[in-house]
Amino acid sequence: MSAPSVSTPSSPSSSGGQQQARTRVLTGITTTGTPHLGNYVGAIKPAIEASLDPNVQSFYFLADLHALIKCQDARRVQESRLEIAATWLALGLDTDNAIFYRQSDIPEIPELTWLMSCVCAKGLMNRAHAYKAAVAENEEAGNQDPDKGITMGLFGYPVLMAADILMFNANRVPVGRDQIQHIEMARDMAGRFNHLYKGDFFTLPEAVVDERVQVLNGLDGRKMSKSYNNTIPLFVGEKKLLKLVRKIKTNSLEPGEPKDPDTCTLFQIYSAFASEEETQAMRDEYAAGIGWGDAKNRVFEYLNEQLREPRERYQALLEDPGHIEQILLRGAEKAREQAAPLMDRLRVAAGLGRFV
Amino acid sequence: MSAPSVSTPSSPSSSGGQQQARTRVLTGITTTGTPHLGNYVGAIKPAIEASLDPNVQSFYFLADLHALIKCQDARRVQESRLEIAATWLALGLDTDNAIFYRQSDIPEIPELTWLMSCVCAKGLMNRAHAYKAAVAENEEAGNQDPDKGITMGLFGYPVLMAADILMFNANRVPVGRDQIQHIEMARDMAGRFNHLYKGDFFTLPEAVVDERVQVLNGLDGRKMSKSYNNTIPLFVGEKKLLKLVRKIKTNSLEPGEPKDPDTCTLFQIYSAFASEEETQAMRDEYAAGIGWGDAKNRVFEYLNEQLREPRERYQALLEDPGHIEQILLRGAEKAREQAAPLMDRLRVAAGLGRFV
Repeated sequence: MSAPSVSTPSSPSSSGGQQQARTRVLTGITTTGTPHLGNYVGAIKPAIEASLDPNVQSFYFLADLHALIKCQDARRVQESRLEIAATWLALGLDTDNAIFYRQSDIPEIPELTWLMSCVCAKGLMNRAHAYKAAVAENEEAGNQDPDKGITMGLFGYPVLMAADILMFNANRVPVGRDQIQHIEMARDMAGRFNHLYKGDFFTLPEAVVDERVQVLNGLDGRKMSKSYNNTIPLFVGEKKLLKLVRKIKTNSLEPGEPKDPDTCTLFQIYSAFASEEETQAMRDEYAAGIGWGDAKNRVFEYLNEQLREPRERYQALLEDPGHIEQILLRGAEKAREQAAPLMDRLRVAAGLGRFV
Repeated sequence: MSAPSVSTPSSPSSSGGQQQARTRVLTGITTTGTPHLGNYVGAIKPAIEASLDPNVQSFYFLADLHALIKCQDARRVQESRLEIAATWLALGLDTDNAIFYRQSDIPEIPELTWLMSCVCAKGLMNRAHAYKAAVAENEEAGNQDPDKGITMGLFGYPVLMAADILMFNANRVPVGRDQIQHIEMARDMAGRFNHLYKGDFFTLPEAVVDERVQVLNGLDGRKMSKSYNNTIPLFVGEKKLLKLVRKIKTNSLEPGEPKDPDTCTLFQIYSAFASEEETQAMRDEYAAGIGWGDAKNRVFEYLNEQLREPRERYQALLEDPGHIEQILLRGAEKAREQAAPLMDRLRVAAGLGRFV
């Protein structure tokens, strides 16, 4: 659930408990890192744009309960939550329109996770990609115990993810290809609960994979990713930004020699931000043999100019965590207005209702 | 966690986060059945007696989240919760002294369950007795999938149980032998969390197995248990009680022939309720060759007399579910006064605290 992408809004779904006026699109953001250019281009920008669609009710949440699976460095989790919230707000997320909240502020989610555990076959989790990959790693390393280092959190993470989605009867969940399986699992649990407790409690969510979403490369030319340690943080200071742009891997062609933009990370990053005209102009410069030093300066200047204003807003937000806290608490309130009545229905359905 | 037993209160434990004035003893009651004589003698009576000890803070809860693992009949769960609550109250549980609540009324418990999932090795659950027994059953039945019919709820149930216990920093958990492993798992998770997040958050709970607890036999001479369908419900009506007592399995000895009380279910049930003198008197009757019909009538009369008053209270309580609801909500409030501050500490420790 780390890489949200944009979905094309559809007409309201009619499968599901409540007749919903708007299509509900839900995206979780794992809170273990600092947002980088790749996150912005591939996830944040399209998501914020999508949230402007009046036919869509967007749910964006800081998936901080998920973060605990991978990260037991409390300070990192805390910082990341703040940085991500500040980033989305600095980039113009409209929290009057989208519902923006921290997962850990919604107690109904872990509660629903337990209810889902009781209708989720263990066999389903045995077949989850992330778990199987971890087992394969252990086997390759020759570990006697195939479950070495695997927690119940990692093993059961698709159940929490199902609760994240089903809690808000999301119709559509933008995901990467690797996450389609988790949406299918959520559908399975939703269907089983609906069947077992004879009701139309849950909408079956749909995975939305948008192939147009851009995957940005990092400093070394591989996909930009925290795990490769090749990222350019989105709101890094000017000096550091220049330094990082200069580190982007190019080749040994001299100034004057024509260069291929289509295999060039520097060009790819530039074009992710620039207009079509600007991109074409840079393409011409490559053909004309612009030197790497000049090209990097140009890209730095351009990025720096584009990022200046949101960076200022970002810094101002970081200096006022109380303001961010208020926004997130308001978001949690809005989210719970949706979650609490559904959770009440589910409790009654399962035999956990009030006695009167 | 279905069969609570009584523990001998000890001096306050000093291992643990907070200095606690009283030893905390915690017992969960699974809410899938109707209390029967065996529950009363083996669990309810000693638990209520133990809660009178001024050195003990007792926590009794209706383990209704656990119930969902085994029982997807919502009406059964709902009825059982009401019946069990009414039973404990009718038998004199002092809810000013003991904290008596429904598990599902404490949202901090599923939340803590997730935190514990993230520090609980999956390998630990692989070795849980209940899970292994279910796998063995599948293997014996020749099922290709050893996990057939096993839910994530059944597999992860010891994690929820750890949260039940650790949420209140219980010092002692009265359990049957088969549950000792679960307490050890709770200790493991508590220790890992304390270690990983560098704090003294959790007391390590101790299992208390009281060998003196009486196991009552049922109609067919096997242990009285819902799963054997051989129970005598505690507060069944007079006529039905007589009918059930008459069904208790005896042997074919005639009136006038001496009978062995020590291998006799009827005698065992009688003596669980009767005083020492009364028990001795019945023993003499057995030696003198009392007929089974007479003996059964005597036992019925005695039980009926003993149970008359609490049965009346029980019926009155059942007719006023709103009153029970109020008592349980007050209990939940008291429980959450304990749970909420600890949960706040845990959130901060894990990086999930407020931004200000």
